[in-house]
Amino acid sequence: MTSSRQWVLRRRADGAPRPEDVELVDAVLPPPGEGEVLVRNEYVSVEPYMQGRMGDRVTYVDPYALDEPMEGPAVGRVVESRAADVPVGTWVRHGLGWRDLACLPAADVDVLDVGGLPPEAFLGVLGQTGLTAYVGLLRIGALQPGETVFVSAAGGAVGSVVGQVARALGCRVIGSVGSAAKATHLEQELGFDAAFSYRDGPVRASLAAALERVGSDGVDVYFDNVAGEQLECALRVMRERGRIVLCGAISTYDATAPVPGPRNLIRAIWQRVRLEGFIVGDHADATEEFLSQMGQWLRDGTVRQEQTVFGGGIEDCWPAFESMLTGGTSGKTLIHVGDGAAPA
Amino acid sequence: MTSSRQWVLRRRADGAPRPEDVELVDAVLPPPGEGEVLVRNEYVSVEPYMQGRMGDRVTYVDPYALDEPMEGPAVGRVVESRAADVPVGTWVRHGLGWRDLACLPAADVDVLDVGGLPPEAFLGVLGQTGLTAYVGLLRIGALQPGETVFVSAAGGAVGSVVGQVARALGCRVIGSVGSAAKATHLEQELGFDAAFSYRDGPVRASLAAALERVGSDGVDVYFDNVAGEQLECALRVMRERGRIVLCGAISTYDATAPVPGPRNLIRAIWQRVRLEGFIVGDHADATEEFLSQMGQWLRDGTVRQEQTVFGGGIEDCWPAFESMLTGGTSGKTLIHVGDGAAPA
Repeated sequence: MTSSRQWVLRRRADGAPRPEDVELVDAVLPPPGEGEVLVRNEYVSVEPYMQGRMGDRVTYVDPYALDEPMEGPAVGRVVESRAADVPVGTWVRHGLGWRDLACLPAADVDVLDVGGLPPEAFLGVLGQTGLTAYVGLLRIGALQPGETVFVSAAGGAVGSVVGQVARALGCRVIGSVGSAAKATHLEQELGFDAAFSYRDGPVRASLAAALERVGSDGVDVYFDNVAGEQLECALRVMRERGRIVLCGAISTYDATAPVPGPRNLIRAIWQRVRLEGFIVGDHADATEEFLSQMGQWLRDGTVRQEQTVFGGGIEDCWPAFESMLTGGTSGKTLIHVGDGAAPA
Repeated sequence: MTSSRQWVLRRRADGAPRPEDVELVDAVLPPPGEGEVLVRNEYVSVEPYMQGRMGDRVTYVDPYALDEPMEGPAVGRVVESRAADVPVGTWVRHGLGWRDLACLPAADVDVLDVGGLPPEAFLGVLGQTGLTAYVGLLRIGALQPGETVFVSAAGGAVGSVVGQVARALGCRVIGSVGSAAKATHLEQELGFDAAFSYRDGPVRASLAAALERVGSDGVDVYFDNVAGEQLECALRVMRERGRIVLCGAISTYDATAPVPGPRNLIRAIWQRVRLEGFIVGDHADATEEFLSQMGQWLRDGTVRQEQTVFGGGIEDCWPAFESMLTGGTSGKTLIHVGDGAAPA
C-alpha cells in the first residue's frame, strides 16, 4: 500500500479561490495494475486556467470534480511499473499533478527524452506552456519577421516565452507586467525591446510610449493573456490587418459578474483586425516541430525558462497557486515535490 | 452652364445626424473638360457608414469635408461626354451621389453592362452592397454548405443579401430585424429559415428559440451588422471554430460615448472562435467572380433585390437617409432622382 498526498477540491470557487476551497489529504493508492505505472512527481505545475476548473462555468475543459483530487501537469519518475515499455526510472510527464505520487496507465504518460535538459523544462518552455506561445504566435497570430508584437502578462509562464520567441523570429517586442521591477527584468534579462507595468499610469499612455521607444507606429500581433483594459488599449493601436491572439483573460477571472468587453471593437472593422481564440490542446500536431525548434533555442540560449520554484514540497501547491494568480511569481510557477533522486 | 442640386455638409454630426447638419444647394457645374463626362444620376444610394463620414472620427475612409457636397454611390447615364470610350447614353456607376448631376473624369466611372437588369441593382445586389455580403460570407466567414448562419439587420441592404446567399449555398439562415412584420417578410418572401425582432423580448431567448426552430445547436457564422447586445448573444451560441464577420455596428452609431463590447468574449477562447473585421474596398479582386455568380442568381430568381425606393427626387435624400438609419426602410435604400428617359 502506497500513500499519496493530494489536493482535493472541497467547494467551488466563486471569484478568487480561497484556501477553504481545497484540502490536502492522504490517500492510499492501490498497487499499479497491468499496464499501469506509479510515478513519484518531481515537479508539478499550477496554471491560471485551473481557477476556471475550480468553478462551475462550463468551458473547454470540465470543472474539477468535488471531493476529488485536482489535476494538472506534472513530471516525475516511474517508481513501480507494470508496463514493459515504461520501466522504473523513466522520466515521464502526465496530467495528475497536485499530488506527490500518481498511479495511472502507461498509455497516459509522455515519456520524456530529457537528454541533459532540466526535467522541469518539460512543464514550461518545452511543455504546454511553450507550445501555447509557439502555436499562438505562429498559427493563430501568423507572425512575420519584422512585425511588432505586444504581449500582456509578459512576465508570466506563457508571456515570457511569447516575448523570447517573437524576438528570436526577428520581431520587436513590447510586454506589459504588474510591476516596474518585472518590466526592468524583461528588458534587461529577456531581451524585450520595451516593457511597462500596467499599474504604472494609464495603459494607453504606457503602450503609446513603448511603441515610440521601439520605433513602431502600431502593433501587428497582440498576444492577449488578460483581456479587459489592455485588450481595449491594444485595439486602439492595432495596425491594418493586425491579429489579436486570444489566449487568456486573467484580469476577468476573479470577477463574479460579467466584465464588459472592449468599447472599441469597431476598430477591428476599420483596421481589418482578426481576433481569434485558441486552445493549445487542439494543436498537438505541432508538437514535433515545436519540440525540435524550441529544444534548439533552449540549448543555444536563445530562449530560457523563466520560473519561480516553490521548494516546500506538496504543501506548497496552494500558496504557489495563490501567488501566481496575484502576480507574485515570475515565469512558470512550479512546485518542487520530489527529491531529485533516482528511484531505488 | 449646368446647374446641379447637391446635398452639402454644413456641420459635423455628433450622435444621430440632424437635418440642420446638411443643406440642399444649387451649384453651377462647368462643362466637362477633356476626358470628363457629365452624368445625370438616375438612382443614388444612402448607406449607414455615411453617418460616420458626417462626423470627425477617423475611420477607414475620410470624413466628408465641411461645406462640400457629400458623396456616395450613384448610377445614371452620360448626358455630355468628352471621353470617346464613354459616349452619351452610357449607363455608369460612380461615387458622386447626393446630387442629381455629376461631372467627373470618365476614368472614375464604372461602365455598366445592364443587359436587361434593372440599373438600380448595380447599387444593391450587384454593387458594393452585394459584394459586401458575398465577400463577408465567403472570404471572411469561410462559409461551408450545411452550416448555420445568423445575420443581424437582416432586413437591411447587406443583411437581406447575406441571408439569400447563405440559403443559396445550402445553409440554414436566421435573421434578426427591428419588427415582427419584417421578420415575417424575411421568412415568407426571402426564404430565411427563421427570423425574429430584436425588440420582441430578450435577444438571447429569441435566438435560442430560432436555433431550435431551424434544428441547429449553434451558429457557425455570425454576420454582424449591429454589434452591441446581438454580438454578445451570438457569442453565447457560437459553435466550435465559428466565425464572426464584423461588418458594421449600427447599434452604436448614435452613441456619443463608447459602448461596452461583449462581456463574454472569453467564449471566443473556449469555442476557438475567430472574429474578423473587413472593408469591402479591399476585395475588389473578387468583383469578377462575384458579378458572374450574383448576376446568375439575380437572373434566375435565387436572389432578389430587397429595396425601398424614395421617388421624390433629390429632395428625398435626407428623409431616406434618416429613415434608413432608424429602421424605417427595408433592404437597399435608394432615391430615384432621374426620370428614366434616355438623354436627348
